[in-house]
Amino acid sequence: MASGGPEFAAANGLLDRRILLGGGLAAGVAGLAFGQSAEVAGTGSPEWMKTPGRTFSGYGMPSKWQEKVQRPFTPAPGRAGTGSSRTPLHLLEGTITPNGLHFERHHNGVPDIDPSKHELAIHGLVRRPLAFSVENLMRYPMETRIRFIECPGNSGGYASAQPAQTTAGGINGLLSCSEWTGVRLATLLDEAGVQAGAKWVVAEGADAAAMSRSVPLEKCLDDAVVALYQNGEAIRPEQGYPMRLLLPGFEGNMCVKWLRRLKVTTAPVDARDETSHYTELMPGGKARQYMFLQAVKSAIVKPSFGLTMRGPGLYEISGLAWSGAGKISQVEITADGGRTWAQAALGEPVLSKALTRFRLAWKWDGGPAVLASRATDETGETQPTRAAWVSRYASGQFYHFNGIQSWAVAADGTVSNVYI
Amino acid sequence: MASGGPEFAAANGLLDRRILLGGGLAAGVAGLAFGQSAEVAGTGSPEWMKTPGRTFSGYGMPSKWQEKVQRPFTPAPGRAGTGSSRTPLHLLEGTITPNGLHFERHHNGVPDIDPSKHELAIHGLVRRPLAFSVENLMRYPMETRIRFIECPGNSGGYASAQPAQTTAGGINGLLSCSEWTGVRLATLLDEAGVQAGAKWVVAEGADAAAMSRSVPLEKCLDDAVVALYQNGEAIRPEQGYPMRLLLPGFEGNMCVKWLRRLKVTTAPVDARDETSHYTELMPGGKARQYMFLQAVKSAIVKPSFGLTMRGPGLYEISGLAWSGAGKISQVEITADGGRTWAQAALGEPVLSKALTRFRLAWKWDGGPAVLASRATDETGETQPTRAAWVSRYASGQFYHFNGIQSWAVAADGTVSNVYI
Repeated sequence: MASGGPEFAAANGLLDRRILLGGGLAAGVAGLAFGQSAEVAGTGSPEWMKTPGRTFSGYGMPSKWQEKVQRPFTPAPGRAGTGSSRTPLHLLEGTITPNGLHFERHHNGVPDIDPSKHELAIHGLVRRPLAFSVENLMRYPMETRIRFIECPGNSGGYASAQPAQTTAGGINGLLSCSEWTGVRLATLLDEAGVQAGAKWVVAEGADAAAMSRSVPLEKCLDDAVVALYQNGEAIRPEQGYPMRLLLPGFEGNMCVKWLRRLKVTTAPVDARDETSHYTELMPGGKARQYMFLQAVKSAIVKPSFGLTMRGPGLYEISGLAWSGAGKISQVEITADGGRTWAQAALGEPVLSKALTRFRLAWKWDGGPAVLASRATDETGETQPTRAAWVSRYASGQFYHFNGIQSWAVAADGTVSNVYI
Repeated sequence: MASGGPEFAAANGLLDRRILLGGGLAAGVAGLAFGQSAEVAGTGSPEWMKTPGRTFSGYGMPSKWQEKVQRPFTPAPGRAGTGSSRTPLHLLEGTITPNGLHFERHHNGVPDIDPSKHELAIHGLVRRPLAFSVENLMRYPMETRIRFIECPGNSGGYASAQPAQTTAGGINGLLSCSEWTGVRLATLLDEAGVQAGAKWVVAEGADAAAMSRSVPLEKCLDDAVVALYQNGEAIRPEQGYPMRLLLPGFEGNMCVKWLRRLKVTTAPVDARDETSHYTELMPGGKARQYMFLQAVKSAIVKPSFGLTMRGPGLYEISGLAWSGAGKISQVEITADGGRTWAQAALGEPVLSKALTRFRLAWKWDGGPAVLASRATDETGETQPTRAAWVSRYASGQFYHFNGIQSWAVAADGTVSNVYI
């Protein structure tokens, strides 16, 4: 697969991933020669060194120079609180999403919940129905885990006949990753005492839509968490303050926000968001329901649409890979539209059901190139081509897209979305 | 060491850490019986379910109900931008510090740096002096790591004769942990070409104090990073926007913010902050300089001062452990002032030079208790007692405190700081 030699790992300039680890990149990017730098080389200090800076702040915000780093949003027509906003993945780095930029998907806006009046009820097929206040939940043993949440409609634009010319965040930004802390749902269900015959748990949110989803009991007793904290602080209003359900690896829509009720039942309830949305339309016209897992997936975010390259030389290709089934085991990158592939370096630690940052050095010769990434997870699943993915479904299906994504780099450095 | 039996792991109610993993806590905390819950049991929906909530936001903020979760600050008298603010550790969970609450330590305020005019110079004993713009640095291969930063004056209050009655954040809040992304300094030094005889690198910030520190070249060629991103987004102004030096495990003060110059030299420069501060005053009157490592340390944050306990029953004890030398290998907890100790559960993944969250279930019988934690790192170092730490130094020394910390729980549930 590699084109041979110690340096290049695949055609069209892809370098061996071990180069990143050794630090031995030598020249290729380089700064300005020192003498060319008027600012630093001795013509005086910058203006901001000449007067004291501003004082402390109780809660900090990003630099004013970063004000374009926002989550763009598209409310449904006439309904201000219905729709989604997206994490600007192409402007971020690493794997953690800062709380201010976690994607949003609301069905009737963000409720303003007084935590002292909020309760979580566990009822239905239980021996002892219970209601938990926030204060009460805080006393339970907690668990902290880094996990992604992805909307099942994320990257759905790839089902279109023509590739959308938009940013990596515009395409894949219904995806974020946080360190979540909360109480294992198994602990709470154990307190309530699940009765024989129980198979499902219906979760309901305290928003004006009373957004509800049915969750298999097996998942609730596995790694499900009632999350109270996000990246260290209380969960944000847009993410479910004071609490949300976290079902690692399952559809983001099922991670019910503003969690209010968990009803233990024998069967799913066919809630609106599991019948009218998030199903899979198959050839022949039948729809598959209850396909919960977010499958293995990846996206290159650097370079990507809108991030124009500035002439031949050394660059880093980097992006994100994730799987609802577990850890990422491998990410391959092509620079020649899929003919040859090189292995990317994976950022440590590689965590289960979390974003993994991959990186590869690339010596761009200035000619046309088509970049794509292909991830494999620890269960052995690999992303299909877009064509293979599309062929599985009826026309119009766009949920759960996990095909290979690609970017074309033109000789002038512009980057566009292409299908390969 | 354990008091025997499968449930209790040490005296005064400390439970076996495996109980957290199994989920089998049974009753002990519990919610209200369902019928007692007027809100949930059928007398109608809460008010926030009756009208649509607010719309999307480009950059989100915490709930208004969390407005007391701030970093308190104490500027030096007459100098608005000199002093520190502290991370409210007792109000947070998990291990990641949200960017808005990362502690601050400034020497002449926070400069407002235009990133398009900022440069990082590498000069001195190098073959090719270089100046890097932010845009240029962005092209280099990057590295992402979760690492803590701690001020060497953190927890210095423990050197006082009497224990300070303040919160866990007030005592230990010059400590935060982020996912940092940037370029390895070794890569940049390689580009510049370090000359023979070089032993140190002097780092200078672009604040009005031109804060400077001398760093051993060996550290710069090891795991040092020029950090551009913090928890995914551009580094915050208070943390050095557009770039800071990150020296994992070393004193926070050396992680120079607003990084402007790196001068490769044969010797340290005796900068103000490595002579007038951050030294170790020894018996006999001599001061040790250049003690860079932040040693193994831990603190219980739940319960702690200000977080009053509400009657006997099951609680979780949790806190943070960290070491500048590597990973935490063990945290022990006592509930009887140090007579018996039980092992706490460590949150996965345990990362090198990062905060580790530890937890243990505690069945409080309502009587007086003295809680303390004792961490050991992978090099085998264990925290000393406070008395042992104090005895090493001359009176007045308070930098680099890493002794065992303890809290007394009174029968009325109030928590106070005590020395054991």
